[in-house]
Amino acid sequence: MSDPEGFKKVSEDAHVSKESINSNPYGPNPADFLSNVSNFELIESTLREGEQFANAFFTTEKKIEIAKALDDFGVDYIELTSPVASEQSRKDCEAICKLGLKAKILTHIRCHMDDARVAVETGVDGVDVVIGTSQFLRQYSHGKDMNYIAQSAVEVIEFVKSKGIEIRFSSEDSFRSDLVDLLNIYKTVDKIGVNRVGIADTVGCANPRQVYELVRTLKSVVKCDIECHFHNDTGCAIANAYTALEGGAKLIDVSVLGIGERNGITPLGGLMARMIAADRNYVLSKYKLHKLRDLENLVAEAVQVNIPFNNPITGFCAFTHKAGIHAKAILANPSTYEILNPSDFGLTRYIHFANRLTGWNAIKSRVDQLNLNLTDEQCKEVTNKIKKLGDVRQLNIDDVDSIIKDFHSDLLTPQPTGPAPHVIEGLAESESKRLREE
Amino acid sequence: MSDPEGFKKVSEDAHVSKESINSNPYGPNPADFLSNVSNFELIESTLREGEQFANAFFTTEKKIEIAKALDDFGVDYIELTSPVASEQSRKDCEAICKLGLKAKILTHIRCHMDDARVAVETGVDGVDVVIGTSQFLRQYSHGKDMNYIAQSAVEVIEFVKSKGIEIRFSSEDSFRSDLVDLLNIYKTVDKIGVNRVGIADTVGCANPRQVYELVRTLKSVVKCDIECHFHNDTGCAIANAYTALEGGAKLIDVSVLGIGERNGITPLGGLMARMIAADRNYVLSKYKLHKLRDLENLVAEAVQVNIPFNNPITGFCAFTHKAGIHAKAILANPSTYEILNPSDFGLTRYIHFANRLTGWNAIKSRVDQLNLNLTDEQCKEVTNKIKKLGDVRQLNIDDVDSIIKDFHSDLLTPQPTGPAPHVIEGLAESESKRLREE
Repeated sequence: MSDPEGFKKVSEDAHVSKESINSNPYGPNPADFLSNVSNFELIESTLREGEQFANAFFTTEKKIEIAKALDDFGVDYIELTSPVASEQSRKDCEAICKLGLKAKILTHIRCHMDDARVAVETGVDGVDVVIGTSQFLRQYSHGKDMNYIAQSAVEVIEFVKSKGIEIRFSSEDSFRSDLVDLLNIYKTVDKIGVNRVGIADTVGCANPRQVYELVRTLKSVVKCDIECHFHNDTGCAIANAYTALEGGAKLIDVSVLGIGERNGITPLGGLMARMIAADRNYVLSKYKLHKLRDLENLVAEAVQVNIPFNNPITGFCAFTHKAGIHAKAILANPSTYEILNPSDFGLTRYIHFANRLTGWNAIKSRVDQLNLNLTDEQCKEVTNKIKKLGDVRQLNIDDVDSIIKDFHSDLLTPQPTGPAPHVIEGLAESESKRLREE
Repeated sequence: MSDPEGFKKVSEDAHVSKESINSNPYGPNPADFLSNVSNFELIESTLREGEQFANAFFTTEKKIEIAKALDDFGVDYIELTSPVASEQSRKDCEAICKLGLKAKILTHIRCHMDDARVAVETGVDGVDVVIGTSQFLRQYSHGKDMNYIAQSAVEVIEFVKSKGIEIRFSSEDSFRSDLVDLLNIYKTVDKIGVNRVGIADTVGCANPRQVYELVRTLKSVVKCDIECHFHNDTGCAIANAYTALEGGAKLIDVSVLGIGERNGITPLGGLMARMIAADRNYVLSKYKLHKLRDLENLVAEAVQVNIPFNNPITGFCAFTHKAGIHAKAILANPSTYEILNPSDFGLTRYIHFANRLTGWNAIKSRVDQLNLNLTDEQCKEVTNKIKKLGDVRQLNIDDVDSIIKDFHSDLLTPQPTGPAPHVIEGLAESESKRLREE
């Protein structure tokens, strides 16, 4: 990214070295003895949940490109659309299984033998089975009762296990399911010996403390790993994922930019932001964070969306500091107003000094960059001039540099009257007038 | 919004009437006896925190337009940039105070008498005072110790109170501050009699259970209201706000689309999504949710950003359902896959049926809309044709309608050979060929 107008790169060196002022208060809570915050795994579902995003249509070539990029990033599992969704979906699943990726390949099917028989023939490392357990879904989706669900689950699980591949059993809409029903079915499938059970907030409405309680309860009922899947309808998908890990869940479903049904699920990048704040060493040891931006751009282009302006980490202003008081402190030590270090992601910090909220410390730093020599008092004076124009209109970096340079040259060759007539080129007469009103 | 390609509006009637299947499991937790989930207030800071967003430059006219729109929406407080930030900032503050809005007007200043003296003369209903209390900010920002902070706070608070206007005292970077220091200063200012104390996650890294613990602890120390301010660097700003309310905080700082320093704070719309899921009646009684989209568009245009594709509520696909299994259930009862009702926001639900993940229930519903008569078996047959083309390329609604209509007319006048030669106009030869391969 080239420097946007009115921004200035800031050096990186101070960040890490001074981070040791405090020990990390965002690390795993010592009271969470079951926490997997420092031991989590990612099930990457851009090629399954993400294909359910309104704009998604992935060709075979694009699926392969995305799968390779995810594998290179370091995700633990890649989940693919059910092979019974369409003929090409089945072929694509087979093709991706043949790539020989480091990540394990999963496919996601209904809890039904028709689907399971097709899935186990695709070459996947594991099968993710799901069935709706809430009264809503039992009544309006598949119309089955809990006994039927348990019977189907046992049949499908034993069949998949007999093929020697991994099996996960998940309820759907878990947070609107009857707790006793839910624990019963999880206990049943755990006894048969699944690799993971899954909790899914299918409608995107669980809140963090609910998640923590359900995961903790489930943790006391099953021996296998717990996987969680959170939709983002009410904006809690990242926090819910983090809290699930605190409670003892081990695997989180993510997709690039969170794409999925409706407004999607826990985004890969956002979860990386949350997790690196909690355990930087673990995250850096497993995932190639400097490839995050390319990965997001790849998927954004494939589904024809823009990276949200406020995206964690890669949003265009995620590391841009504007108010004077922020700029001053960031220049002294970036950790003052940053919990994430942009260089961990191959990104750069900016100080936005071309605006009316700017402060003299930021301007002094710009003066130094321009190799000019001004005292602190002179910097404060020129800052006032900049703020004055910033009151009149939006500024860019050239405006600020012009004001500084004119101020500096006026000092060398003092003018008999008022400010230089051409403080900023292209300034409208009304702007000049307002700027002269001191 | 006109119907996008490949989407279909779904009727609204089923949603609310059938929501009574379960009582709301997302309401306030009965164990949270201090909860303000059903009694919260909003401090809207688009014109303060939002002005610190990289792209923001608000003219006086735009500030007034935004302030009026926020007031109409129903926010409880509107917070404005410090009047000492620039001369125009002071004038704008005075102008907005004179509008006679229902919302109370606040301005946000450093904990310093120079700022306080200017602030109380602007006509505001209240002053929000802030000072950094973390070791980071004490060392690299203002360089003051806790005794100095307490002395300044007392002086500023007593001065503002003497003018008969509201006063809030907030620490900055609260979650990296020493807990004892923090509780001491809050206790001190509470004794003098502030209206609110504020907790600020200035670097955006608190997690929900930390928030709950700090709010609960603070609640046992002060009598006044607690306000919270959460940055979104690690994607938890909405969840943290919700959890703070559970713990007993009463006021949440928000901005439209969350705009602010870096990638911003708790967004107004996202918090509305979270809160309406918890207490629909309270939210609907206070806030004009059907104006949310216009409000977001107003601010997005002013700061030159697009509404994020995955924005809660107003993202283009927040109420779009795609996978066949989802579509089937949504057609039977929208609550199966929606916790939010789009009509609460003046919005519409869509079924995305023009894709390879579609199911025959969604297609049957389209057949009915087209006033055609097909049996379930025939609908399944035509769905297979649609999925087949969906494997070849991205579909739009006209593609699907053409396939259905051709299928229907073939039934009335059976062809001696294969499918109609022009199933879809504009189909490439390779696509036609692939489609014929049955």
